[in-house]
Amino acid sequence: MAEPVHYFAPDALVQFGTEVFKAYRLPAEDAATVARDLVAADLRGLASHGVARIPIYCKRLRAGAINPTPNIAITHPTAVVAAIDGDDGIGFVVGHRAMAEAIEIAAQFGIGMVGIRRSTHYGMAALYVMQAIDAGMVSMAFTNSSPAMPAWGGRTNFHGAAPLAVGAPGGRPGDYVLDLAMTVIARGKIRLAASRGEPIPLGLALDNEGRPTTDAQAAFEGVLLPFGGVKGSAIAFMMDIFSGVLTGAAFGGEVKSLYFDFSGPQNVGHLFIAIRPDLFMPMQAYRDRMDEMIERAKAAPRAADCDEILIPGEPESRTAAARARSGIPVTGDVARALIDEGAQAKVALPASAARPFDAGA
Amino acid sequence: MAEPVHYFAPDALVQFGTEVFKAYRLPAEDAATVARDLVAADLRGLASHGVARIPIYCKRLRAGAINPTPNIAITHPTAVVAAIDGDDGIGFVVGHRAMAEAIEIAAQFGIGMVGIRRSTHYGMAALYVMQAIDAGMVSMAFTNSSPAMPAWGGRTNFHGAAPLAVGAPGGRPGDYVLDLAMTVIARGKIRLAASRGEPIPLGLALDNEGRPTTDAQAAFEGVLLPFGGVKGSAIAFMMDIFSGVLTGAAFGGEVKSLYFDFSGPQNVGHLFIAIRPDLFMPMQAYRDRMDEMIERAKAAPRAADCDEILIPGEPESRTAAARARSGIPVTGDVARALIDEGAQAKVALPASAARPFDAGA
Repeated sequence: MAEPVHYFAPDALVQFGTEVFKAYRLPAEDAATVARDLVAADLRGLASHGVARIPIYCKRLRAGAINPTPNIAITHPTAVVAAIDGDDGIGFVVGHRAMAEAIEIAAQFGIGMVGIRRSTHYGMAALYVMQAIDAGMVSMAFTNSSPAMPAWGGRTNFHGAAPLAVGAPGGRPGDYVLDLAMTVIARGKIRLAASRGEPIPLGLALDNEGRPTTDAQAAFEGVLLPFGGVKGSAIAFMMDIFSGVLTGAAFGGEVKSLYFDFSGPQNVGHLFIAIRPDLFMPMQAYRDRMDEMIERAKAAPRAADCDEILIPGEPESRTAAARARSGIPVTGDVARALIDEGAQAKVALPASAARPFDAGA
Repeated sequence: MAEPVHYFAPDALVQFGTEVFKAYRLPAEDAATVARDLVAADLRGLASHGVARIPIYCKRLRAGAINPTPNIAITHPTAVVAAIDGDDGIGFVVGHRAMAEAIEIAAQFGIGMVGIRRSTHYGMAALYVMQAIDAGMVSMAFTNSSPAMPAWGGRTNFHGAAPLAVGAPGGRPGDYVLDLAMTVIARGKIRLAASRGEPIPLGLALDNEGRPTTDAQAAFEGVLLPFGGVKGSAIAFMMDIFSGVLTGAAFGGEVKSLYFDFSGPQNVGHLFIAIRPDLFMPMQAYRDRMDEMIERAKAAPRAADCDEILIPGEPESRTAAARARSGIPVTGDVARALIDEGAQAKVALPASAARPFDAGA
């Protein structure tokens, strides 16, 4: 636990990632997109979806499980719907191309929907709704992913952790950004508790006999439970219907594991919907109402353990602002993995600092 | 608790409800719609949203808080988006009219979206996605409602319980129907525990000082918490952005209470999206994939306490099939309230049986 943390300039990490992905034949623009997206996750405090994942994406590129130069094909079943075949390209590139299409349709028709098949793992789901926010749009991003938890009542993995993302541009107090996985807790946290020999609360996981357990090791060998019990499970079902069944992608447990199955592309599915906020009133009225909603929520009397009421996305945007100043903290094990990965691609990891850039002398 | 249960024929209850609502000047067709919807909720086992609510809707009609003969105005900001002003009509009538519009647009363009303002409480949210399923459509129904729980970190009510509904037509194993309230538990269950002097689990509610509590009475005097903790809270925020902020309806705690505020119409907002399932593949392929998804889920190895894996909506559709045979069970207090309400409208409550219609001799 005393592993030192290294602070990297965000831009330097973007450049590093870009060069690494270029070494695997991603076009320069696509390589930069992926690198920027990973660093965006690190900035927002989501280290699990940040540069720590460069090695796994490289491994999949080496295995041929990600196509570095996809021919992303877009057809239009109707004027307001696009169907995208991602050609097994990296999910970030496919995802941004798809949301751009949804935004373009919505700009003209008020709403645009894009179904995507043959994509791959696309990282932090917030990326795509933030893209829509930048275009002044409300949006929803559905995805599926490899099995990470059972259907309700089951004891073997079926649904993905499959994050749901929803975004709505805000005004003065900031944007609304929802990005939530279907599992009640990340698997990494169960592993950490197991390694420390600590118990976990009931309701997080089942053991491999399908029994509720507080034993972290038994939980790690078993399955995670959905957030919110049967309600979260029902939402996980929706994620796979929308992203998998409907779009033509893999579904019902078929999406290949990012980490453990290199036998071929994942065939991940996504479904994006972009919506213009000025359909039912002028844009400024919408913005004023968002401000009012957020300000009312934040001004409410607080619960006993709450210092400040934050809206969805606000903690992450604050972290991003802080890390833009401090640099991105990277643990030693991740830094070593990046050095090794860079070496394979003949790219040197940039210099880091032992302290935050904005720390006093 | 020994209150006897009376069994009513569903058709007879529909007729009763229709006549009662006609007495409050609802057109015959609209009165029948509301009555059928309430009985549909009873059939599905959702007694809280069934005929037990006839008196409260009548009270709001008497108070002028529901307009019995609304002029529902539909405009089209774009070819694929409709804006509906419900003119304070009863939510059931406004809701079905709105989903019909979404379905009609989706039939032509693949997706249709309808934003509704100046509606009122619309009952069981599943009604509207089941309407879309009957038309062969996938759909989402967002609504807001009067404050029933705090924003995350608050201790006073802000968000509504506001159910999210999502539907997708299935094949052999049945349809997917999600209908879930944002609160972790219904307020009535807290009240019941309080009346029995029983404790409640942590995580359901805060006391009126904003402290977590297991004291049911303190919880009843305090506030409910969202399902799934901060994740459910973030979804509740979305419900109000989509249904309230975006559509032009009341939002951010402004929707008037169904039970406690008769000072005027509620100005509830809804947002409906209907989607044709045959956009990315032929309809039969979609149906086959839904079947496969559902059958895979149901065939999975089961958790220790699970006899059968059921998909979202399956328990309710089984209950509906059983109650079509047994009749609808109505508790004595509700039956008495219906007799009183009927008397005001000069409509007699139909005969009931003391045992299920399909009970043996």
